[in-house]
Amino acid sequence: MPNYGGNLRNIHGIAEQVRVNIADVRDQYSMNYLVQGHDYLFNLAGQTSHLDSMHDPYTDLEINCRAQLSILEACRNHNNSIKVVYASTRQIYGKPDYLPVDERHLLHPTDVNGINKMAGEWYHIVYNNVYGVRATALRLTNTYGPRMRVKDARQTFLGIWLKRVLDDEPILVFGDGLQMRDFTYIDDCVDALLLAAVSPEADGQVFNLGSHETINLRNLAELLIAIHGSGSYEIVPFPPERKVIDIGDYYGDYRLIQGRLGWQPTISLRTGLQRTLDFYHEHRTFYW
Amino acid sequence: MPNYGGNLRNIHGIAEQVRVNIADVRDQYSMNYLVQGHDYLFNLAGQTSHLDSMHDPYTDLEINCRAQLSILEACRNHNNSIKVVYASTRQIYGKPDYLPVDERHLLHPTDVNGINKMAGEWYHIVYNNVYGVRATALRLTNTYGPRMRVKDARQTFLGIWLKRVLDDEPILVFGDGLQMRDFTYIDDCVDALLLAAVSPEADGQVFNLGSHETINLRNLAELLIAIHGSGSYEIVPFPPERKVIDIGDYYGDYRLIQGRLGWQPTISLRTGLQRTLDFYHEHRTFYW
Repeated sequence: MPNYGGNLRNIHGIAEQVRVNIADVRDQYSMNYLVQGHDYLFNLAGQTSHLDSMHDPYTDLEINCRAQLSILEACRNHNNSIKVVYASTRQIYGKPDYLPVDERHLLHPTDVNGINKMAGEWYHIVYNNVYGVRATALRLTNTYGPRMRVKDARQTFLGIWLKRVLDDEPILVFGDGLQMRDFTYIDDCVDALLLAAVSPEADGQVFNLGSHETINLRNLAELLIAIHGSGSYEIVPFPPERKVIDIGDYYGDYRLIQGRLGWQPTISLRTGLQRTLDFYHEHRTFYW
Repeated sequence: MPNYGGNLRNIHGIAEQVRVNIADVRDQYSMNYLVQGHDYLFNLAGQTSHLDSMHDPYTDLEINCRAQLSILEACRNHNNSIKVVYASTRQIYGKPDYLPVDERHLLHPTDVNGINKMAGEWYHIVYNNVYGVRATALRLTNTYGPRMRVKDARQTFLGIWLKRVLDDEPILVFGDGLQMRDFTYIDDCVDALLLAAVSPEADGQVFNLGSHETINLRNLAELLIAIHGSGSYEIVPFPPERKVIDIGDYYGDYRLIQGRLGWQPTISLRTGLQRTLDFYHEHRTFYW
């Protein structure tokens, strides 16, 4: 899918150790087959672009709602002892009522993608509770790191920022640049996914990820430029279609997963950005 | 649709004053046409059976999610000055964390229907906020009265209870019969729909309906029998497929709509049940 995050380069070096099956999550027959014989399903496929979900709400619905039902029905009917870990998102909270946002915060998404991801998350919890298809949802926040899509802003704005810094183009910061955000380095995210998979106490639960570091976008741009050693950024007005679905400040409270599963972020933002810039400096041809 | 609530008998006597167009809400082309030239849309069509949503989650998704997007896209593109009032449901709260349930209560639905209705509600709020398609959602609770479907339990359990009392068959009360519920008589519900339609301060808002009377199911059965003058009820175990999606006690806090729009219920449960029994006593042939 040219508009999505997959990139076969990402398994370079381990291609012989993994089995790849390219299929669309909307294809019920593939799902029915593929869930069989496995202990864990990391359910990470999704349409993640907020803007796309407004331009084409039906495709977002098909992927983030209908396909999630198909996957869960496949598990229920063809492998009901599988454990599913679902990649949910902090987007479902919408514009926060308070900070940091914990799991008791109301869900009031600001765009169609947020609504459909909310539904997708709850299908997992209901299938856990009603059918015993064990599932855990992690509400991810700005996951970044080597191998992410950077050619555009479809997987967090940070992707295109990384590319522009490395291309010696100015980073574009929307609004006043004071919006607060938190970030999760990919290795920390993978740790959380694995912990959720193997922890029985996570069954039927929803957990925020988050960071002890929060930063506004202007400072993030400055940090990225400082780590890279050069670069510039421009404060530009919000494009209207983004402004109307923007969530303002966000950072999450991750004490629930910390207390229950012992997860906490281990890679500082500076280290994570350094590693990410280094990776794309070396491998840019496969991701540009 | 034989499994849904519509019944042409319900416009008997006013058929010359209304225009009827029979169409499926999933039909985008019909929706595009039908929204044109109207000031208000009372968006009441839905799949309401919780059990059906578990047996066939895709149909529930098509009606309660995809069709809602189609309706809103129709309004956005073909009549963006229309005002939409959406029939949401207290089912989206799931099993209450506290009573009475107000609009700040977390949404954690217990079945696929509850999830899809939650998404359908939020599409309305997002289209209000992003596109200016004015919309209000009312979270209805056990709406009952003349002209409801009573041939089975697809539209609240109270329908089949009414029928059984009038058929001199015992009412079946699931569980211990101590589950608390609240009810809205149809005339009060219609008042709320009309107030929501004409009140600009309702745009983009979500309101509970509710009642100052709450009652457990056993006492409700006894009240129904007392009003009817005869009858019986049996306490029977919960069917397992219903038990697993049951929400326990529920009653709602309706002070928000009371304060903002001046709505409050005016028909007591006794009066409402009396009128409903009288109606079906007279018109049973059209509803049995």
